[in-house]
Amino acid sequence: MLKFDEAAIKTDVDETLALRGQVEQDVAQIVKEGYENLFLVGIGGTYAVAEEMMAYLKGHSKINVYVENAADLIAEGNTKLGEKSIMVITSATGNTPEMTEAVLYGKERGAKAMGFVDVADSPLAKVTDILYSCRGGAYLKLLIILLAFMKEAGEFADYSKFYNQMKHLGDGLVSVQKAADHKAKAFALAHCDDDMHYIVGGGSLKGAAYSYAMCYMEEMLWMRTKSISAADFFHGTLEIIDRDCNVTLFKGEDGARTQAERVERFLPRICKNVTVFDTAEYPMAGIDGEFRDILTPMVMAAIYARISIHLEEAKKHPMDIRRYYHRLDY
Amino acid sequence: MLKFDEAAIKTDVDETLALRGQVEQDVAQIVKEGYENLFLVGIGGTYAVAEEMMAYLKGHSKINVYVENAADLIAEGNTKLGEKSIMVITSATGNTPEMTEAVLYGKERGAKAMGFVDVADSPLAKVTDILYSCRGGAYLKLLIILLAFMKEAGEFADYSKFYNQMKHLGDGLVSVQKAADHKAKAFALAHCDDDMHYIVGGGSLKGAAYSYAMCYMEEMLWMRTKSISAADFFHGTLEIIDRDCNVTLFKGEDGARTQAERVERFLPRICKNVTVFDTAEYPMAGIDGEFRDILTPMVMAAIYARISIHLEEAKKHPMDIRRYYHRLDY
Repeated sequence: MLKFDEAAIKTDVDETLALRGQVEQDVAQIVKEGYENLFLVGIGGTYAVAEEMMAYLKGHSKINVYVENAADLIAEGNTKLGEKSIMVITSATGNTPEMTEAVLYGKERGAKAMGFVDVADSPLAKVTDILYSCRGGAYLKLLIILLAFMKEAGEFADYSKFYNQMKHLGDGLVSVQKAADHKAKAFALAHCDDDMHYIVGGGSLKGAAYSYAMCYMEEMLWMRTKSISAADFFHGTLEIIDRDCNVTLFKGEDGARTQAERVERFLPRICKNVTVFDTAEYPMAGIDGEFRDILTPMVMAAIYARISIHLEEAKKHPMDIRRYYHRLDY
Repeated sequence: MLKFDEAAIKTDVDETLALRGQVEQDVAQIVKEGYENLFLVGIGGTYAVAEEMMAYLKGHSKINVYVENAADLIAEGNTKLGEKSIMVITSATGNTPEMTEAVLYGKERGAKAMGFVDVADSPLAKVTDILYSCRGGAYLKLLIILLAFMKEAGEFADYSKFYNQMKHLGDGLVSVQKAADHKAKAFALAHCDDDMHYIVGGGSLKGAAYSYAMCYMEEMLWMRTKSISAADFFHGTLEIIDRDCNVTLFKGEDGARTQAERVERFLPRICKNVTVFDTAEYPMAGIDGEFRDILTPMVMAAIYARISIHLEEAKKHPMDIRRYYHRLDY
């Protein structure tokens, strides 16, 4: 398989999971000291991941959780952010100025920051009070922190069962990538030169559609996209879709599956260029169906990792190159 | 001026403002009975308006306010929605099934619904506990309700001063439309056939950019768009912008103005096809600068009303026609 590093996928997952004990201790300490609310702060891709997480949390947890885009937080403020707030962050490079500024903004108001920054001596890492450092995807990192808070609040009864099964997660995500590769390649070959990609995702996959369109297709592959939530698809964007428009639907196993099904039923009546990527087609051995809800964004990320790699090859556009990002100051 | 009904603009504003006394009474009663939180529930355009309102509220009010897309609320739920919740809604037709379902979903959980529905015998109006009915824009309707809650919470000290000046709002919005007409027409003539429109908006204009792109350009004019927040513009979308890309920036007078300025400074380095619509260029006589923050979405809506009308003419595409919406069942 093209550019496929099975060992790296597993290592990323397992190194993140290995930090769970430390996260649990730190969260228990925070709960003991008392906190009022959590702020999931991100920007670009990490903002999208925070939105993915929030789509689950708002229906399942009574903890006061707010999602903030780092740049918006600095510009507009938030009355709920204060001494009893915990900012939860993730970052790969730790080098995004807005994130460091947002954390400093919160700390000036008495809040604490906890989270994962891959590069431990980066500007963001240096201002993070409770720091974990490892490679790997942002969603699992957020999930570990948030589930620890939910466990402390008595909200996630199957906590032990869940983590017993998470030893299969690395293998599971490898198997998803393998199983999705053929379809991802066919999609890339068929659509790499399309002049526009519409990406529809609902629930926790609204963030996935947003991120895939913006961080992968636009930023790394210089392709034109519009992402739209399944909820709002019928309230505007549908009118621009015609027979030949390229529409991709991200379908998950969360509460919003019915919304994706509605889009899926409708589209073939007006469009002959629809591709559906459905996480349900990619089981992970050893992981029960009851946990597919909160794992939906990770399964979809494994699927679109393969799409990106094949688009990179089909377009002969290395994903590492940037026109402006980190090349110009702005 | 093309399709310009000055009297209708003023009537819409004044009829909405005339309901303020009733809103204040009802809100005072709710506060007296006790409530825990407010849910701004919308879908499509009304969801975008709720986001516009929220961009202000989160930095200025300590009231617990949540924004929900009606379809997402039904699909995913929200643990904060309960007996002490007030759902705040607006709708023109009252005929959007997801909105009625969302209100019923909330009422089953003990919540109350209050809000504006133009058509008083519509399905949505019939399930709304506290109903106001008049024509006019959604933002002012939400604003009147939310400011009444803020006043009760002692959060909007200049309440009387604000409404003393609101007698000038109708005339003010007329003057904005008149002043913006020439630029809007030039924009429409120059860009009506562009194959893609990027619309950037920050803060309360993130929702405006979203709504303008989706509800006007896509739905009513069948134009391809991508809207993006000023906050995330630098975290993906910028890479797809090159010399000839058509980029429109919505610049307001709210907290996020600095973010828009950052985009405005950067764009000319990589693009020669940038148009900035800045609410600050359109004063409204009799209304102080201190209130331009919360009026920013209304000023921008007055500006883009003129853009739409000139695009309609330039494209010879009547805005009333729909391919699918209310033509097919889905």
